[in-house]
Amino acid sequence: MKRAVCLLSGGLDSTTCLALAHLDFECYALSFDYGQRHRFELESAAKVAAASGVVHRTLQFDLRQFGGSALTAAIDVPKHRSVTEMGNGIPVTYVPARNTIFLSFALAWAETLGAQDIFLGVNALDYSGYPDCRPEFVEAYTRMANLSTKAGVEGAHLTIHTPLIALSKAGIVQLGTRLGVDFGLTHSCYDPDATGRPCGACDSCLLRLKGFAEAGLKDPLVYP
Amino acid sequence: MKRAVCLLSGGLDSTTCLALAHLDFECYALSFDYGQRHRFELESAAKVAAASGVVHRTLQFDLRQFGGSALTAAIDVPKHRSVTEMGNGIPVTYVPARNTIFLSFALAWAETLGAQDIFLGVNALDYSGYPDCRPEFVEAYTRMANLSTKAGVEGAHLTIHTPLIALSKAGIVQLGTRLGVDFGLTHSCYDPDATGRPCGACDSCLLRLKGFAEAGLKDPLVYP
Repeated sequence: MKRAVCLLSGGLDSTTCLALAHLDFECYALSFDYGQRHRFELESAAKVAAASGVVHRTLQFDLRQFGGSALTAAIDVPKHRSVTEMGNGIPVTYVPARNTIFLSFALAWAETLGAQDIFLGVNALDYSGYPDCRPEFVEAYTRMANLSTKAGVEGAHLTIHTPLIALSKAGIVQLGTRLGVDFGLTHSCYDPDATGRPCGACDSCLLRLKGFAEAGLKDPLVYP
Repeated sequence: MKRAVCLLSGGLDSTTCLALAHLDFECYALSFDYGQRHRFELESAAKVAAASGVVHRTLQFDLRQFGGSALTAAIDVPKHRSVTEMGNGIPVTYVPARNTIFLSFALAWAETLGAQDIFLGVNALDYSGYPDCRPEFVEAYTRMANLSTKAGVEGAHLTIHTPLIALSKAGIVQLGTRLGVDFGLTHSCYDPDATGRPCGACDSCLLRLKGFAEAGLKDPLVYP
C-alpha cells in the first residue's frame, strides 16, 4: 500500500480527510503545535490518530513570534457572525502563511518516507475566507513542491489531494458519518474554554453546527 | 525605508546577501534552529545580525523528526570530494524541503511586517546540487506565495530576491569584501568540531576555501 502524509488538525475536516485517505493509503498523520489559542485541538488530533491506528507526529514551533492573527496574538476571536459576514473578506483568524508552512513540513516528511501523496482537508465552499484554502493555491504549491525536492528532480510527481475542497460542511459531515468517523473525538472551536469545551459562537463552531444541522445529524460535542 | 525579511544561516552567502539587502531595506533577519548537525552556525548568525544592527529572530523546530539528511540524521558528511564529485547529483547533505520550509516562515513574518521583499542567499553556480537553490524553484515559490497570503490576494506582490544566484563563490567573497562583511564572524562548515572549528574537508568548507583562493583573498577562519 502506498504511503501518504495527512495533515491532521483534529478538526472535523481533517479527520474526515484522514478517514478517506486511509481507504487507499498507509497514512502518516502530521499535526502542529504552533502556539495556537485553540491548542486543545492537539488532544483531538492524538485521539483521532490513535483511533485510526496511524503513525502520528506533532511538530512544534511558535508562530506567536510573528503574531498577526486572532489565533496567535492578543486579538479577539469574532463571535456570532452571520454567514454573510463570514464571506466578507479574510477574517482575523487567518494565520499568515499557515498552510504554506504546514504543507512544507508535510513535503519534508513525504520525501523521507518516499511518499508521493499528501492529504489536506481544506474546503472552498462553506469556507472561512482563507486564501491558502483555494484550489489555485494548492495547484501553485504542487508545482513548486515538484521543483523543490530530490524526488521531484528525479521524476517523482507529488500530488496534494484535497478531496473535501468542493464539499459543503453538511457534505463533509455526511461523508465522515458514512466512513465511520467519531466526530465526538474532533474539535473545531477557535476559542474553547479551559476545559476544551467549544464556545459555539466563533466562525468555526457556527459553520460546524450549520453543517450538522443541514446534514440532519446531531453534533456529539457539548456546547454551552 | 521598505522592510525585507532576510534568511540568515550565518554562512558566507547569507551574510553577504544580508549586507546587500541592508543597502536598500530595513532588514529583519531570520535563522532556524532545526536540529542541524552544524548548530554552531547559529552563533555566527547572531554575531552577524548584531554586527549589522538588524532585528534577528531564530525559529526552532526539529527536522531530526524526519531525518533523511547527513545534516539531520546519523549519516556521515562526505569529505574531501572533488568539484566534479560535488557536481554529480544531489548530495546526502540535502535536507528535504529545507528552503521551502525556511521561505514559508519568511513569508509569514513578511506578511505580519507588511514587507513585500524576502532575501535568500542561494547561488546556482559553484553550488551544492540542491534542487531548492535553483531559479525555477524560486520562481515557482514566488508564484505560490502570492496566491497564499492575504497581502497577495489584496494585490501586493512579493518578491524573493536572490542576488547571489549567478555569482561564483569567488564573486560572493569579492562582493562581501566590498560591502565590508567580516567573514571572520561567518561559519560554513557542515561538520565542525565541538569548539565550532570548521573541518576544512566537507563540500561547504571546500567550496568556501576555493572561493577565497580564486578571489585572491584569505579566509579569516582557522582550519585544522
